[in-house]
This record gives sequence, C-alpha cells and structure tokens, in this order.
Amino acid sequence: MTGAPDCRACAGRWPDPGFLIADLGLTRAFLHDDQFFPGWTVVVLDRHATELYTLERAERAQVMDDVAAAAEAVARAFAAVKVNYALLGNQLPHMHWHVIPRLADDPIPKDVVWALGHSPRPPADDERAAAIARIRAAWPR
Amino acid sequence: MTGAPDCRACAGRWPDPGFLIADLGLTRAFLHDDQFFPGWTVVVLDRHATELYTLERAERAQVMDDVAAAAEAVARAFAAVKVNYALLGNQLPHMHWHVIPRLADDPIPKDVVWALGHSPRPPADDERAAAIARIRAAWPR
Repeated sequence: MTGAPDCRACAGRWPDPGFLIADLGLTRAFLHDDQFFPGWTVVVLDRHATELYTLERAERAQVMDDVAAAAEAVARAFAAVKVNYALLGNQLPHMHWHVIPRLADDPIPKDVVWALGHSPRPPADDERAAAIARIRAAWPR
Repeated sequence: MTGAPDCRACAGRWPDPGFLIADLGLTRAFLHDDQFFPGWTVVVLDRHATELYTLERAERAQVMDDVAAAAEAVARAFAAVKVNYALLGNQLPHMHWHVIPRLADDPIPKDVVWALGHSPRPPADDERAAAIARIRAAWPR
C-alpha cells in the first residue's frame, strides 16, 4: 500500500479488517460499518489515489470491474431493486466506492441514502458474519 | 439508441439537447439543468442499461473513461477541490453518471450535494453557454 500522510485508509485505521469481504487485487471490498441500509458495501483502492482521472486506463477498468462485481454480489445477496454507486471522498479522499443495494422495503427509494438522517447502525457480530457470507456466496465468478 | 418503454432518456425528453457538452460515442455529456452546484455535469449512456454489472467489460471501461474525462474537465474548468461521482438511478434508471465538482466555496464541503435542500437553479442562457464552453475547452485530449 502506498501511503499518504494523515490518511486513515493508508494507516490501516479504516475500514476495520473484521469487515473484509474480499481482497480483489487492486482493491478490497468491505461490509460498511453502518448497516442501516442492509448490504451497504465499500470497495477501497489499496494505493492512495483520489480522482478517477488520475488512474491509468487499465487500473481504472479493473477498479470498476471490482465495483461492478461487488454490485452484482450485493444485488443478488439482498435481492436489490437497484444499486447505487458513489465515489465521493468529501471526508476521506482515499478512493473508496460506496456500493449500496436498494431493497424493496427501502424507506426512501427515490432518494439518495444520505438524504435520510439516522444514527449509524453497526451490525451485531453474527449479523456481520452472515452478511459477509451472503455477499461472498453471491460473488460473480 | 436502444429504447426502453416509458424511459424519458430513451424518448429524448431528458436531458435537454441545449445542454449538450460533448458526444463521446457511447455516452453524451450534458451540463446539469440545476447549476446550484456550479459545473454539475451528467454523463448519459446512449443505450438503455441500468446497472454497471450488466455492461460488458470493454463497454464499462469506455463509459468510465468518459466519466473520468468529464471529471477532469469540470475539475479544471471550475478549479474543483474534489469531484463527486454517482450512478444512482433511483428516479430515472437509465444509466447516467453525476459528475459534480466541489469548489472551494462549497456550502457543505464534507457532505453529499443532495444533503442540501434547495430550489433547482436553471442557468441563464449566457451562463449555460459559458459553462459549456469552459468545460469543452478543459476537456482532456
């Protein structure tokens, strides 16, 4: 991992390794530590980069294949109606993609998930393990 | 364009062709019709598709190259601090990427743009033309 000063991701302080779903080579997929929206996953680039246009073409294509695979997995695992994909970096500029399945019982299906203020809902240990297992089992091969 | 029934994008009812920045082959880039966040651009797939994982690898790579080019252009044209990228489709599932430059005077720099309720701000004709010209001039070659 290429480190950047003061970067929580480069320092290994985020995400929690206990939430790892898969090591994909250039990226790693983790269950998000807030499961208010079930199945929310993050795909984190190993090296430090911020903008999509600073990646080389082949690297960008591979990262997006990883994001697409994560989306397909969470869509299958949680029977999603739609998946949302977002690369923001407003709080942590280290490239990480939010991959968010939107389910049939979504409380705000027409809006972005960030439109619904809520207290973060960390999953219980057994819920976390079950979600990770479901997503791994649904991963495209 | 491959049409889907009841799709506003396939029917040519959105985006307004007067907001076109560039025809990129598989996608077209348009200035967003709400310029509350200046430089907000959308990259719209010509054919109807919804999820990133339903595209073939080469098509996905090309689409993401287009998104990256749009991001580089708006970042340069508007001196962005960060760019946000989002594929949502909650209201219109026809694939379109939001590419949003976040500027130094952003009102909510740590949050997603959707966190700030506001009335849409359609650009005046001269402002629209100027923004499109700036983004075209900044397009990577």
